[in-house]
Amino acid sequence: MLKKDTFALTPPMGWNSWDCYGAAVNEEQLLGNAQYVADNLKDYGFEYITCDIQWYEPKATSNFYNNFTELCMDEYSRLIPAENRFPSSANGVGFKAIADKIHAMGLKFGIHIMRGIPRQAVHRNTPVKGTDMTAREIAQGFSVCSWNTDMYGLRTCEGAQAYYNSIFELYACWGVDFVKVDDIANTEYKPHDPYSAREEIEMIRKAIDGCGRAMVLSLSPGPAVISEAFHLSQNANMWRMTGDFWDHWDKLYAMFERCEKWAPHVKVGCWPDCDMLPLGKISKTCTCLGDRDRYTNFTPDEQKTMLTLWSMFRSPLILGGDLRENRPEDLKLITNRDILEINQFSSENRQLYRNRNEAAWSCKDKDDNSVIALFNLSGDEAEISLDLEKYGIEKHGGKALELWTGESTEIKEKSLKAVIRPHACKAYRLL
Amino acid sequence: MLKKDTFALTPPMGWNSWDCYGAAVNEEQLLGNAQYVADNLKDYGFEYITCDIQWYEPKATSNFYNNFTELCMDEYSRLIPAENRFPSSANGVGFKAIADKIHAMGLKFGIHIMRGIPRQAVHRNTPVKGTDMTAREIAQGFSVCSWNTDMYGLRTCEGAQAYYNSIFELYACWGVDFVKVDDIANTEYKPHDPYSAREEIEMIRKAIDGCGRAMVLSLSPGPAVISEAFHLSQNANMWRMTGDFWDHWDKLYAMFERCEKWAPHVKVGCWPDCDMLPLGKISKTCTCLGDRDRYTNFTPDEQKTMLTLWSMFRSPLILGGDLRENRPEDLKLITNRDILEINQFSSENRQLYRNRNEAAWSCKDKDDNSVIALFNLSGDEAEISLDLEKYGIEKHGGKALELWTGESTEIKEKSLKAVIRPHACKAYRLL
Amino acid sequence: MLKKDTFALTPPMGWNSWDCYGAAVNEEQLLGNAQYVADNLKDYGFEYITCDIQWYEPKATSNFYNNFTELCMDEYSRLIPAENRFPSSANGVGFKAIADKIHAMGLKFGIHIMRGIPRQAVHRNTPVKGTDMTAREIAQGFSVCSWNTDMYGLRTCEGAQAYYNSIFELYACWGVDFVKVDDIANTEYKPHDPYSAREEIEMIRKAIDGCGRAMVLSLSPGPAVISEAFHLSQNANMWRMTGDFWDHWDKLYAMFERCEKWAPHVKVGCWPDCDMLPLGKISKTCTCLGDRDRYTNFTPDEQKTMLTLWSMFRSPLILGGDLRENRPEDLKLITNRDILEINQFSSENRQLYRNRNEAAWSCKDKDDNSVIALFNLSGDEAEISLDLEKYGIEKHGGKALELWTGESTEIKEKSLKAVIRPHACKAYRLL
Amino acid sequence: MLKKDTFALTPPMGWNSWDCYGAAVNEEQLLGNAQYVADNLKDYGFEYITCDIQWYEPKATSNFYNNFTELCMDEYSRLIPAENRFPSSANGVGFKAIADKIHAMGLKFGIHIMRGIPRQAVHRNTPVKGTDMTAREIAQGFSVCSWNTDMYGLRTCEGAQAYYNSIFELYACWGVDFVKVDDIANTEYKPHDPYSAREEIEMIRKAIDGCGRAMVLSLSPGPAVISEAFHLSQNANMWRMTGDFWDHWDKLYAMFERCEKWAPHVKVGCWPDCDMLPLGKISKTCTCLGDRDRYTNFTPDEQKTMLTLWSMFRSPLILGGDLRENRPEDLKLITNRDILEINQFSSENRQLYRNRNEAAWSCKDKDDNSVIALFNLSGDEAEISLDLEKYGIEKHGGKALELWTGESTEIKEKSLKAVIRPHACKAYRLL
Repeated sequence: MLKKDTFALTPPMGWNSWDCYGAAVNEEQLLGNAQYVADNLKDYGFEYITCDIQWYEPKATSNFYNNFTELCMDEYSRLIPAENRFPSSANGVGFKAIADKIHAMGLKFGIHIMRGIPRQAVHRNTPVKGTDMTAREIAQGFSVCSWNTDMYGLRTCEGAQAYYNSIFELYACWGVDFVKVDDIANTEYKPHDPYSAREEIEMIRKAIDGCGRAMVLSLSPGPAVISEAFHLSQNANMWRMTGDFWDHWDKLYAMFERCEKWAPHVKVGCWPDCDMLPLGKISKTCTCLGDRDRYTNFTPDEQKTMLTLWSMFRSPLILGGDLRENRPEDLKLITNRDILEINQFSSENRQLYRNRNEAAWSCKDKDDNSVIALFNLSGDEAEISLDLEKYGIEKHGGKALELWTGESTEIKEKSLKAVIRPHACKAYRLL
Repeated sequence: MLKKDTFALTPPMGWNSWDCYGAAVNEEQLLGNAQYVADNLKDYGFEYITCDIQWYEPKATSNFYNNFTELCMDEYSRLIPAENRFPSSANGVGFKAIADKIHAMGLKFGIHIMRGIPRQAVHRNTPVKGTDMTAREIAQGFSVCSWNTDMYGLRTCEGAQAYYNSIFELYACWGVDFVKVDDIANTEYKPHDPYSAREEIEMIRKAIDGCGRAMVLSLSPGPAVISEAFHLSQNANMWRMTGDFWDHWDKLYAMFERCEKWAPHVKVGCWPDCDMLPLGKISKTCTCLGDRDRYTNFTPDEQKTMLTLWSMFRSPLILGGDLRENRPEDLKLITNRDILEINQFSSENRQLYRNRNEAAWSCKDKDDNSVIALFNLSGDEAEISLDLEKYGIEKHGGKALELWTGESTEIKEKSLKAVIRPHACKAYRLL
Repeated sequence: MLKKDTFALTPPMGWNSWDCYGAAVNEEQLLGNAQYVADNLKDYGFEYITCDIQWYEPKATSNFYNNFTELCMDEYSRLIPAENRFPSSANGVGFKAIADKIHAMGLKFGIHIMRGIPRQAVHRNTPVKGTDMTAREIAQGFSVCSWNTDMYGLRTCEGAQAYYNSIFELYACWGVDFVKVDDIANTEYKPHDPYSAREEIEMIRKAIDGCGRAMVLSLSPGPAVISEAFHLSQNANMWRMTGDFWDHWDKLYAMFERCEKWAPHVKVGCWPDCDMLPLGKISKTCTCLGDRDRYTNFTPDEQKTMLTLWSMFRSPLILGGDLRENRPEDLKLITNRDILEINQFSSENRQLYRNRNEAAWSCKDKDDNSVIALFNLSGDEAEISLDLEKYGIEKHGGKALELWTGESTEIKEKSLKAVIRPHACKAYRLL
Repeated sequence: MLKKDTFALTPPMGWNSWDCYGAAVNEEQLLGNAQYVADNLKDYGFEYITCDIQWYEPKATSNFYNNFTELCMDEYSRLIPAENRFPSSANGVGFKAIADKIHAMGLKFGIHIMRGIPRQAVHRNTPVKGTDMTAREIAQGFSVCSWNTDMYGLRTCEGAQAYYNSIFELYACWGVDFVKVDDIANTEYKPHDPYSAREEIEMIRKAIDGCGRAMVLSLSPGPAVISEAFHLSQNANMWRMTGDFWDHWDKLYAMFERCEKWAPHVKVGCWPDCDMLPLGKISKTCTCLGDRDRYTNFTPDEQKTMLTLWSMFRSPLILGGDLRENRPEDLKLITNRDILEINQFSSENRQLYRNRNEAAWSCKDKDDNSVIALFNLSGDEAEISLDLEKYGIEKHGGKALELWTGESTEIKEKSLKAVIRPHACKAYRLL
């Protein structure tokens, strides 16, 4: 087993600041949500609290990035938290104080970074720790992100490895447990291309392996390319199989095809990622694909469909809303122990079939009972019938317990039948 | 479990007529090779004897196809064996007599077909069994093979399903155990394309499921498209992940990348296929990529590399040479019980790493011992060293038994080290 | 000058049966429209009367093709007119009688063919005139049309040239003046592809050059590929730069970009073709992109925009409606001598500019006056102003005569200004 | 006529520093070559003396670029000559002194620029003349060159137009007559792409039109995309239809296809560009595709083939070698008045045919005589025969004068015949 696969034994669960705060989250918001997790969700398995993009940008106010703006940086070309947003980081403390508080709550701490080195370091030609090479020498001038001007990608050279080593050394010192690396995961490998994300992913892997602390490595953005599946699984713990996910049915509908395609690649330490869950209150200081400061556009049925798919597939479960504004139904939804246990502890997960209007998945739960999810993907109520024998699901006692409602049904003629509302699902444990 | 997955529990093993006889194999050659398998290889697991393409073409003499030639066909537009080549098929017997003989040897019988319906049936507008629709009505006029003029693909309609049902009914009646369907497996699915191989694959699956006999379904040609992996695994038992494979190093070298990509899709009933093994005497009446009537161009080292890769990956093992001309070393090579058991009964098969010059794979054998294969892909002798700890291979007694030579080595400093000749490999069982 | 360029000195003008009759036109309809042209349009330059696709198909009734249907064919694998639709063709007369009548009206006669040889000839293996090779030997089995099952494309061989020679010999004998060859003009040349339309185009060119009669060669369908422009101009007199054109604004809007792209390739004997004009009563026995038996959906403004663009660009002008049902305004529209003279006799034709909302073209008329067309491509009325000096249009007497209305305007401040309705145009001669 | 088309009435001729000096040319080398042109080539039409890339880079020594190096820049973010390389540029003189000297020789002066604004200006956020916007605000962060780190492309905004205006104002003040803009000409237009070279080309066009001085606009690198032909012809005087051209036969062979494709786009003010002529002594301080400090690898036959093709096509003729090291044969080659007059003053230029082994072009010279060039593209000596009647070349007195040798031939049977060495050509004037 690869070393990295020893510390993400189940799909990571937690909270991330992007869906509600964009690039602008601050210390109070971060710790406030952490406290909510500690108080309400820790017992259900949620543990990673991740500060998303641009914590080093003092002027960030939303999901829009300031062009070529000044970033907070130390003497070794390493980005550090903006003190005006994260006061406890002052005087060289960095994220250590926040990480300590989160650890004290019994949780884990994550940060987001962009691959590469700050462009401002390159144009000032500042030093890199642990090497004689300077920022200018290790940057790849044409390797730029298409949506943000902060960084240059790195050339494949010793100085670049030294830079990645130096930042993960810092993160280890802060007590970081999870790193989401961005602008790195949707590239196809091209052998004759002088630049390819593969090399930077490998340098990051090596830096983490050598940093002395276990850190989950999450890669973004998606969609990752299926032909890179092997390379991703060798180097990362989770990677985005989709572009940014938001609360629109078409995006949820499209996820069924993505899950079908990526299912063979799900295994311990390797979690293809359906992206954050836009549940509860989202878009507080960002305006991604919807109104500002809204509760999710997903209907209650769609919310359950999403959680059921994410769980049958075993995607990471990272909450996106401001948890402090959760309504009772929001909290209830994300604390269904049966569904969460499927996400964390099921096996033999597989799609049984999928067509334009329906899909069905099955798995075994931790007690080796069969679990079946039936999805109505159409806009009309429909009766869905699953021939259990056809799929070799034959060991059961003739009963099916629906996990969202607690209702029990009898299995007749070796088939599971249900009338399901539009965009809704049923998740049955066979008993 | 899908019904189809109940009858290919391990990678199919056997012999196929193409590599030595092209489209021109006859009854004597087919049965002669079957007898050789019965006498020498059955105990090692080889069992399927498959008659490849155009057994219905009386004038076939090589791997070249006669343009628009007359084919042997029954009154229901179904192709039947050419009597001049398969005398026992006369008087409506079809392949039944040959299948019976092969079954009597304790073996199984396979045939090759092209998807679709004979063009001659369409242009004569002959009947289709079990439907009022005629050949003309079920054919798709623009769905043609790019390298053979025998068939038209079928439209997605009831008459087309009836046609596929009618041919598999016939094959079941003959006693066919294995069907290799060609011109169907290298197409990407395009939602807005009126034609797509998916529909024909599904009709064939349905026809087999309803024919009353277990038949392994093998799809050709390759390379299959990775994004079709799920659909293929739902419908076929094996599918070609490569174009025609022949005895050239560059093709063997390229297979390492293909195996890396397809490895997550290998499972019971679903065997991505590295293609036939061009070993021993090949190209007797065909001239594919080499001289006529030659012994394989692969060196002994390359032959072992091929068999080791096919086994660590768990590809089907289908022999391609005329077995009756096997030299002692040819027989010895394909009867290495250790290697064959890895192919049939190993688990947790995975590539550990691969670069331009080296590759390593590991798996567990049937006794739960770790097996490691080290491949030297370069043209120079090289020392390859594998850090076992890095890959979590830690349970062993410090010894490694090489399975091709029987030599034993001590594992020092948690590493496996070997000096390996160019294009050669070492396959170790850790003890 | 190439021989072919000596007989299409101006853009061909005429009538074609497709837009109103699909594949089902008959002798009465063909001659009836010819008579209308002779009576009303000949003096304006219209002269080619073309019978479109499948005149050899006795069961054709619309624009839908019967799958694998029986075609009328002579003993040399050559298609001949269906007698039930073209009675005068009986007894081996073929199209000679119809051609004679059309010639007697002072007009010219055209036919449509598909590239290749009838599939029925290939599967019956019938003879080819002037060669020992048979239909089976010259056909390319995988070279099929994607929308019609009548023909196979031809291999590049002497027998194929003989077949093309034999059909053009027949057409010359009938008195054909214009041949529209279909399924041949939208293919990109690929050097490593065993099949490419280039070879069949060249065989057809050679067959026409040797047939002893001048025939205009028109290639379809489009869109032709711009990188083939040179090859097309060496071999054909006109070729479709668009897919089938119908009476929808979006198709007309898109033609402006096509004209921009193809303009440098317009020259004597080489007329990139904007396709037939769906004017007057169309779709009588076909249902292409609209209701059956309708008058054109184009507004009067759009009709003038179309004719103006076709003329400023110098496209062939082929009428598509049933002329006998022309309303007075339909006849008036297509007999604007000023516009038609621009189409036939202008020079220095060029687009001046084009953006999302406007376009302007200029040319010199036969008297060397500048002509300017201003197009309002937007859905709102707009004032369009053209700085004549910027485009070097400086020789004029300060007046502009609008050619659709006859109104005269003064040119002030070296600019041409006009308020133009949505989708409308103004065409000015500067005096 | 567009204003730009009034100042490049014939294909530009001259010298450029790249082929011999890469990015490292200095004042002495530039003026030395100018003096050679004035003394030896001016009478033949050569006039533009162009200083190629990175005259603002003090450390440039070859064709390799220093990563993120410091560039010489004025207070308005405009690049200025490096004083250590161009001493006369000191004290704010810029290129004015050099331009004056070149003008005094009766020649014209050209410079190379990269599209966009220096990255160092953006990261320092320096001012832009004539606008309140700063460098940071007008730069497009992801619009970077793939082979050089000097610049960012510009957003489409008023501040960007102001920047382009400001640099062309400076160039006009220096006395620049020719500007080669790089990193701009090989992009296909994509309507939904937020960035496209079209916008920057249009801003540059507008800046030149408004700068008060006639400047030829040359765009690089190639290959330009044929679908952009119209846009290029509206905005530029010449544009590269090829990647960098060097002295290898395969590159010369490939140019025949490029010329075929671009020929319809050649007209006054619009000169598709076959690139510089790597003749004489090249690569003095650069190492592009060959040894340093070499005489051209082209054979004498290939050199004539190149000049003949460039002339029959009417490409710009820009010399690339250090002219001061010309051998007598080098000077003789580039001063063949007959060939140069074809380049400058011919009409009706067209390729007659081209296949794998041969090509032929024709045109009319300034006295309306036909000129025919026959090219042997194969590696073997060949007799090439051209049927003049077939191509309509019928007005001549029966004699053909070869323009490289001065030999006279009789035209027999309306054909021009010649035995031609491998890679060689014959260029005949018909008399």
